Amino acid sequence: MLTFHVEHTSSHARAGTLLVNGHTIPTPIFMPVGTAGSVKALPPTDLALLGAPIVLGNTYHLYLRPGADLVRRAGGLHRFSGWNGAILTDSGGYQIFSLQKLRKIVAEGVRFRSHLDGSEHFFTPESVYDIQTALGSDIAMVLDVCTPYPATENQAAEDLRVTLDWARRSKQHQRETCPEGPTHLFGIIQGSVYAALRRQSAEALVSVGFDGYAIGGLSVGEPKDLMFEMTRISTDSLPSDHPRYLMGVGTPADIVRAIGTGVDMFDCVLPTRNGRNGMAFTWSGPIPVKAARYAEDFSPLDPDCVCPVCSSYTRAYVRHLFNAREIAAMMLTTRHNLFFYLDLVRRARAAIAMDRYDQFAADFLSRYAEVSSANE
Amino acid sequence: MLTFHVEHTSSHARAGTLLVNGHTIPTPIFMPVGTAGSVKALPPTDLALLGAPIVLGNTYHLYLRPGADLVRRAGGLHRFSGWNGAILTDSGGYQIFSLQKLRKIVAEGVRFRSHLDGSEHFFTPESVYDIQTALGSDIAMVLDVCTPYPATENQAAEDLRVTLDWARRSKQHQRETCPEGPTHLFGIIQGSVYAALRRQSAEALVSVGFDGYAIGGLSVGEPKDLMFEMTRISTDSLPSDHPRYLMGVGTPADIVRAIGTGVDMFDCVLPTRNGRNGMAFTWSGPIPVKAARYAEDFSPLDPDCVCPVCSSYTRAYVRHLFNAREIAAMMLTTRHNLFFYLDLVRRARAAIAMDRYDQFAADFLSRYAEVSSANE
Repeated sequence: MLTFHVEHTSSHARAGTLLVNGHTIPTPIFMPVGTAGSVKALPPTDLALLGAPIVLGNTYHLYLRPGADLVRRAGGLHRFSGWNGAILTDSGGYQIFSLQKLRKIVAEGVRFRSHLDGSEHFFTPESVYDIQTALGSDIAMVLDVCTPYPATENQAAEDLRVTLDWARRSKQHQRETCPEGPTHLFGIIQGSVYAALRRQSAEALVSVGFDGYAIGGLSVGEPKDLMFEMTRISTDSLPSDHPRYLMGVGTPADIVRAIGTGVDMFDCVLPTRNGRNGMAFTWSGPIPVKAARYAEDFSPLDPDCVCPVCSSYTRAYVRHLFNAREIAAMMLTTRHNLFFYLDLVRRARAAIAMDRYDQFAADFLSRYAEVSSANE
Repeated sequence: MLTFHVEHTSSHARAGTLLVNGHTIPTPIFMPVGTAGSVKALPPTDLALLGAPIVLGNTYHLYLRPGADLVRRAGGLHRFSGWNGAILTDSGGYQIFSLQKLRKIVAEGVRFRSHLDGSEHFFTPESVYDIQTALGSDIAMVLDVCTPYPATENQAAEDLRVTLDWARRSKQHQRETCPEGPTHLFGIIQGSVYAALRRQSAEALVSVGFDGYAIGGLSVGEPKDLMFEMTRISTDSLPSDHPRYLMGVGTPADIVRAIGTGVDMFDCVLPTRNGRNGMAFTWSGPIPVKAARYAEDFSPLDPDCVCPVCSSYTRAYVRHLFNAREIAAMMLTTRHNLFFYLDLVRRARAAIAMDRYDQFAADFLSRYAEVSSANE
């Protein structure tokens, strides 16, 4: 069962509730990335303590290791990983297309070699849905072709043609195999930076009919303004009563701006990956907590944060842990950063409910420096 | 303020309560090792959730990084690390004597080079106490000479002579600088595997008068039976109204046997270090959870454990996390293993309170295989 209701709007921003298989997800929402069945440095029960209602799992990684059949025999990814929230799985397409030399697209699907052992595999829209069903995913993504940037309009159109064909086959396969199953299906808009292709993509997917619509192929190197223009064109072409998911985006400022274009769902490795590398997010912008200037800074990572890390630890202590190469440094920064992202979308939602989102976004963006001027 | 009361005895085993600076520590107790101001892969607030009342900090490591003065300016190690329990710090002696080529003992103290940058340092009994005071330690250890195994009786006697001289100087320095301070002082018995030296060591320390007595220089390669014989000779020479601490010991079976000789306190890196390498402790013995045979074992790490890890995760999942080189694997196994050690001393204490410790120990040892026959 998947339902979605928009409860408030503020300019183009939406506050809603996504209900899927008994899980309640307030939107806008940020989904932490749990690559191999766990957010890195933050096992599922720890993630739950931060209040995350949904996590993203990577089909490509889970398919290769531990394998979809093993996860199915374990009772699905929820039971296997001890996670009681909702799970959205990607299609693996993005990972495969990142493999570059190791993959080949044909009409039927995509052939690729594992980055782990070089073994050859073949994904089709149908097999990718089946894998996500075996994983017990609540929300599956269709297999798509993620057009790189830059790309000619011809290449983008050809990639889109394949993407739409695969989207129809995915939906058809779902209808034939488990139309009432727990694994719902989102379509993915492609079209690179070409407005007409983006509109065509959205309209074609809507005519097929999906449980939700994702905006893919962005944040792949194009200028920020172009990213938001394409996001806005995509959301304008989508029905208001379905969730909209901007894939792989982004920085806190990106998320605030994209919510303003009517996006409901986000995922990104930034808070976790950069956290492991020593970047801590704050309401004034990210800080490089490893830096020597924090050696005796006995304030929390973010003075405006109420997370369990900021309640107990200081910048000086976290900096020391990084300096001493302690795993605990990555654990604490990951925890804080994900709390920050979840708090950001919570505060955005509250602003939408009060119909003052534009003010919230302006206040946030005026205070938040994407790169600290003192960064090193 | 440090007080110690033995509340129950069962054969030679003791159940007591150590009160230090407002912290209540039921004994026998296991102290997790928090090398650099955090137990590896388990930050202080996480450790508190496991119910640990006291942690060990390594003076050598904290002195080198982040430095005792920085920790003092942070308000001491408790505040610096966000740890609300008690802290015992070692003297750094063991680490320095492990440096081998990098150190030189003279009458005054020990000269050594940092393993981090080769810089030269000089520790004396007095400076080591001052460092531990700067760290805000609740229980400091005297600087001692840890005799390696094997050693001739002459070498052991000479090391003991220096150790006792340093112990007297440590106590004298404490009396002169902060007799009523929060940092209490334990003496350390040496004497290698020579019974007469062990007795002489214990008696000399008792005549100086310390807040507690540690048994050092064991678990350094000598046969197990010799270790327990020396432990027993040491405890027999100590007053019953002071806590006894067997340093660096040991396996679960070692701890059960040593409690039977009247030891109250333990520390060891085994549950944490081996946990990070994939060894999970169970009431039947350790298991190598990385092994292929656990790939589809959907039971908890230990079916008899009620820890947060065993309540939520399976061997198959933890094995997968190790296989995928996820930090979460080390986090979960560390948590389980420390819970196991804390649970072991809790159960031992309960058995002593019921005066059935010998039966408890016999039951435990008959079931517990130090090395799984299926180990690999």
